[in-house]
Amino acid sequence: MVGGGQGAFIGAVHRIAARIDDQYELVAGALSSDPQRARDSGAALHLAPDRCYSDYRAMAQAESLRPDGIEAVAIVTPNHLHAPVATAFLEAGIHVICDKPLGISLAEGQALAALARQKNLLFALTHTYSGYPLLRHAKAMVEAGDIGELRLVQVEYSQDWLADAIAAGGMNEGNWHNDPQKAGPGGTLLDVGLHAYHLAQFVSGLTPHAVLAELSTFVPHRTLDDHVQVMLRYANGAKGTLWASQVATGCENTVRLRLFGSKAQLDFDQEQPNALWFTPQGGNRQLLRPGRVDSAAARHATRVPAGHPEGYLEAFAQLYLDAALAIRALQAETPIPEAARWLPTVADGVAGLAFAEAVLRSHAQGATWTTLADC
Amino acid sequence: MVGGGQGAFIGAVHRIAARIDDQYELVAGALSSDPQRARDSGAALHLAPDRCYSDYRAMAQAESLRPDGIEAVAIVTPNHLHAPVATAFLEAGIHVICDKPLGISLAEGQALAALARQKNLLFALTHTYSGYPLLRHAKAMVEAGDIGELRLVQVEYSQDWLADAIAAGGMNEGNWHNDPQKAGPGGTLLDVGLHAYHLAQFVSGLTPHAVLAELSTFVPHRTLDDHVQVMLRYANGAKGTLWASQVATGCENTVRLRLFGSKAQLDFDQEQPNALWFTPQGGNRQLLRPGRVDSAAARHATRVPAGHPEGYLEAFAQLYLDAALAIRALQAETPIPEAARWLPTVADGVAGLAFAEAVLRSHAQGATWTTLADC
Amino acid sequence: MVGGGQGAFIGAVHRIAARIDDQYELVAGALSSDPQRARDSGAALHLAPDRCYSDYRAMAQAESLRPDGIEAVAIVTPNHLHAPVATAFLEAGIHVICDKPLGISLAEGQALAALARQKNLLFALTHTYSGYPLLRHAKAMVEAGDIGELRLVQVEYSQDWLADAIAAGGMNEGNWHNDPQKAGPGGTLLDVGLHAYHLAQFVSGLTPHAVLAELSTFVPHRTLDDHVQVMLRYANGAKGTLWASQVATGCENTVRLRLFGSKAQLDFDQEQPNALWFTPQGGNRQLLRPGRVDSAAARHATRVPAGHPEGYLEAFAQLYLDAALAIRALQAETPIPEAARWLPTVADGVAGLAFAEAVLRSHAQGATWTTLADC
Amino acid sequence: MVGGGQGAFIGAVHRIAARIDDQYELVAGALSSDPQRARDSGAALHLAPDRCYSDYRAMAQAESLRPDGIEAVAIVTPNHLHAPVATAFLEAGIHVICDKPLGISLAEGQALAALARQKNLLFALTHTYSGYPLLRHAKAMVEAGDIGELRLVQVEYSQDWLADAIAAGGMNEGNWHNDPQKAGPGGTLLDVGLHAYHLAQFVSGLTPHAVLAELSTFVPHRTLDDHVQVMLRYANGAKGTLWASQVATGCENTVRLRLFGSKAQLDFDQEQPNALWFTPQGGNRQLLRPGRVDSAAARHATRVPAGHPEGYLEAFAQLYLDAALAIRALQAETPIPEAARWLPTVADGVAGLAFAEAVLRSHAQGATWTTLADC
Repeated sequence: MVGGGQGAFIGAVHRIAARIDDQYELVAGALSSDPQRARDSGAALHLAPDRCYSDYRAMAQAESLRPDGIEAVAIVTPNHLHAPVATAFLEAGIHVICDKPLGISLAEGQALAALARQKNLLFALTHTYSGYPLLRHAKAMVEAGDIGELRLVQVEYSQDWLADAIAAGGMNEGNWHNDPQKAGPGGTLLDVGLHAYHLAQFVSGLTPHAVLAELSTFVPHRTLDDHVQVMLRYANGAKGTLWASQVATGCENTVRLRLFGSKAQLDFDQEQPNALWFTPQGGNRQLLRPGRVDSAAARHATRVPAGHPEGYLEAFAQLYLDAALAIRALQAETPIPEAARWLPTVADGVAGLAFAEAVLRSHAQGATWTTLADC
Repeated sequence: MVGGGQGAFIGAVHRIAARIDDQYELVAGALSSDPQRARDSGAALHLAPDRCYSDYRAMAQAESLRPDGIEAVAIVTPNHLHAPVATAFLEAGIHVICDKPLGISLAEGQALAALARQKNLLFALTHTYSGYPLLRHAKAMVEAGDIGELRLVQVEYSQDWLADAIAAGGMNEGNWHNDPQKAGPGGTLLDVGLHAYHLAQFVSGLTPHAVLAELSTFVPHRTLDDHVQVMLRYANGAKGTLWASQVATGCENTVRLRLFGSKAQLDFDQEQPNALWFTPQGGNRQLLRPGRVDSAAARHATRVPAGHPEGYLEAFAQLYLDAALAIRALQAETPIPEAARWLPTVADGVAGLAFAEAVLRSHAQGATWTTLADC
Repeated sequence: MVGGGQGAFIGAVHRIAARIDDQYELVAGALSSDPQRARDSGAALHLAPDRCYSDYRAMAQAESLRPDGIEAVAIVTPNHLHAPVATAFLEAGIHVICDKPLGISLAEGQALAALARQKNLLFALTHTYSGYPLLRHAKAMVEAGDIGELRLVQVEYSQDWLADAIAAGGMNEGNWHNDPQKAGPGGTLLDVGLHAYHLAQFVSGLTPHAVLAELSTFVPHRTLDDHVQVMLRYANGAKGTLWASQVATGCENTVRLRLFGSKAQLDFDQEQPNALWFTPQGGNRQLLRPGRVDSAAARHATRVPAGHPEGYLEAFAQLYLDAALAIRALQAETPIPEAARWLPTVADGVAGLAFAEAVLRSHAQGATWTTLADC
Repeated sequence: MVGGGQGAFIGAVHRIAARIDDQYELVAGALSSDPQRARDSGAALHLAPDRCYSDYRAMAQAESLRPDGIEAVAIVTPNHLHAPVATAFLEAGIHVICDKPLGISLAEGQALAALARQKNLLFALTHTYSGYPLLRHAKAMVEAGDIGELRLVQVEYSQDWLADAIAAGGMNEGNWHNDPQKAGPGGTLLDVGLHAYHLAQFVSGLTPHAVLAELSTFVPHRTLDDHVQVMLRYANGAKGTLWASQVATGCENTVRLRLFGSKAQLDFDQEQPNALWFTPQGGNRQLLRPGRVDSAAARHATRVPAGHPEGYLEAFAQLYLDAALAIRALQAETPIPEAARWLPTVADGVAGLAFAEAVLRSHAQGATWTTLADC
């Protein structure tokens, strides 16, 4: 693991997720660039002292030379380090599991994609929500034609953790999320907007060809956007709205996707991840549930019987499990199993950065229709 | 009543609404322009034969001359007749209760507003949802500062009744809703989009100064739009999204408004009209309920104790009740009572048409920011 | 109308309900036994002074002699007067619409049933909840075998309005609900317990043959029960639990019925009356909605299109509409129309009093299985 | 681990739960009494061959003699083996984490409690639901007096997995759940009824002194009960209803607890474990959420920020974490930390068996009030 030292939220989540399905052992880390904190954090996680690094390049090199070196690295640093760290490990022949966003520019993302392809290594990107069994089932339904032709996409990601004035407990000025050098050119856009975008793309199977966007910053003294509104156009004529906000007062972590097709509607909110609502035109609204829906995709992502709620950590674990399946297949030079084919990878990351880049361009031009780069 | 002959949905709703609080008696009508259908419809409603008209102008004139002539007229015709019918009755000195939209152009609306003002007559517009007690309570909370400064407006009106192919049971070609001569220049925009717009304006107390809009038509052979997406900008910096759709597969009649302020969130869906969700930043999500909330505005609009759900017909009745209070006051030359001050009137209608006009302009210019006309 | 003078809640509800479907005109009343209050209440309702009575017997006699005398009386008095008032009007040949309970003893109820039968008059009992379209649809589903053989009944009626200490705002000592002379031998049992019982019987079509019951009184200085727990046994082997409480802190007016059959479950709560949940064994939970379900029974009880919520007042109005249909049929000596056959009548009242009598006996014997009287 | 070989559901759940918080390593097992299956199951879990036992007694003895022997054993066998297996490990000085029920008779349970006390070993019992952060918060609220004096307990555990005819896919005849020799004298009672009972006791802090119960068996050819109804009496005058059913058609795994006190209501359903509803008398219904509620008890049981749903596996993990804290404390001869004090232990198991024994006696006597044994 690179990043994720003491006090870091997402590092701990990655570690739990990696443990749940028992496919990983944490044996080495560059948990902090501060040597003392790196050692202390490593000791707290029972790492051997000689595998507690304070420099990710040193780690990539040393681990690639050990006979018992790591097979994969989890990258949980601030955004600006995703690309350099991932590059170092890919160069060292080590598989990568990286937190989103893939990087802070489209060019960075494209370079990573090329490198991963060239090295024939797995590059998994933890768009967590795609690990929920019901979102996989939703995707399977869309592929099976159950909603007909897609017409409308409504996707939202709303949080309130940046709604307070910075001095009053909102994200403080020193936080890297508010520093364009570390967070990249988008705040809410890159932090949660990309999740919303990925989700819509993942389930619908469609990529918009143009966006019209407006970024806003509501809280004084914030440098980056804390609210994003986007209109979407798809090649087949479908339309959509995406909004992402971290000043949506009173929202915890709403991630809601609605797809309206010519035949039916699908509706999902990650705060209720054990509920997928399916409404065929002219029929009853139906509550689909993990453990009861009948698709290989959902079964693959379900650990317990119906009525026993799974949550965010299991969705996260699903990505780790799928990554393990993919890595084993690459190591064995066998095809990646069907079950793991929905793992988000570097390609999803590139698509997300193409979206972000188009949103930033549209906004800069005063909210005009802007075509997404081919990628 | 003008319009609302046999088989017309909204006429029957108006009549129930008028009866609930016992302030009206239906005594005359131009229920149809077809003389036989006008007579039959009138007879079915126990109207005296000599007060069953087939021409609204004749009705306005005759009733204004009778000693027992009507005090108010309810207009429930197709859109294009709202203005001429209302004009005839205003000219005859008769109060007007008109279904939305006010008319099919901003100019029409402005002329009606001027005429009503000149005649000192009530011109009520039945934006039904504003009759719900919890929306009135929401407005009272916003006025009291309970949500702080408004930052985000998210409002949606989604139905599925036009989602089917026209031949397969969707609105047939002969229906006036699909005829620009009768419906006006907008389909979904004027039919339900204006409700969404009014609701946001009603509760927030704010009017956007600019919109950016895209209209879509998904179902082949439809003339008018069946889907509307709008971004909103407010003078105080608040932003918003409004979408209205009649091809939102699987939606019955969702009318959901969310307001996010610097201090709290309000959330309401008219399909659950006895629930208003209030979430203060940093606090618990709270379910506010009619009969339990403590505001004069809500009490005025509540007929039964907590836990006894009221619905759409009572919201509609509320407008009729408030119109009666206003008419009595005008007749008595006393101020309109505080309780009735939130009745939507011709001014709301003009504001809605200004919005519609700006949306149509923005769309015609390829979705550009467009300023609303002053009105 | 007898009872329902100024300030009485249920009288006003009956009057709105009678107006909604336009089948009734209120022309006479014994609204209070106090002559002045009777006159004032009548005047407020636009009754002619000579038809404002202060004695229900005088009213029954006078109205039966008038050529324009009332066709039906609505009885909205305290419980102990239901039987004597109804008797007076039945004797006078006038149809009766009576609030529940039918009376305060099984014997009273049986006498009323015999009298109504002998006079061939309608005796409607306002078990309101049976007027909801989705409960009628539920009954139609049970009749059609959609849930298979009934196994479990879970029914609850919970309110909190008696949870406070009597001095602190709970029902004050002078309220007739706490006076066995006026309320009868049961408090919560007769007030809301009978609604729960009727609902279970109405939808399931089954009557339990034995009950085991415990009554409780939680609030000091209360004379009658404020909480009831009952176990039910049915002839087919089905089992059930009924509980009714007016000290269920934080409950407004929950009336929830769940039926579990060998094939499916039905679930309804009157606080969400536009939702009926149907779950076939092994299938998805489905949300059935008025305006979308396909049964004559539901259509008959629905006034507006799907997505426009109806509520308590419309359910109440449904009973008035059905009573009008029944009265017209009796007047015309034609069969009562199929549509009105689910109107609760005196027979339901007798069944309820048989239940109440068995509950009281079971409780008196320390909660033992007690057989219901045949009736 | 004893039990939990290939194909066993609950064994896999225990293993995931043990991994989540990284306090356990699985190193030995008597996963099956069939030697081949024991070896195969152990190999699949990466156990050393010499630590794959087919006899739990041999395992207890061997592990107690190893310098690296297990510190704790997880028992996930059929019910009848809980007591003998636990006895063997306690005798060998090994801490016990045992699935519920504690045993199949009260005497068994009391003997285990005495033995654990004598050996000063931890005996944790996996009443999973008590691991949910919001149930711990609920308990903290009750202890703080937030609901006032308890009046009503309504608890239900409903499933549908035994609703089908045995031949048609319901539990087959060979399943140990239907064999009194292995399951014990109660079916649904011991399988899920005890969970419901524990939950009520856990949150309320109160133990009923008497029960009145009826067991039912709906599905032909079933030996044990598949439905349980119980009325409860508490020493302080509180009353309650508990029902548990595995023939509740259409229910997945509802475990709902409602407590009504003189001041407020609490309402929780484990199918929505991230929602605790708190309604103060006279106030608004409030949605309490993990990550937002402010109690040490909830924080201790929460791994991720608000809005990131945790589920059943995390609740289960919580018991393993608390057991680890308790074992460390016992090993260090320090007090068990406050945070772990709510771990269900052998004492809860004895209380549950006392309840089950009283229910069985009440039922045998035709549903009469029956006092719980002191224990």
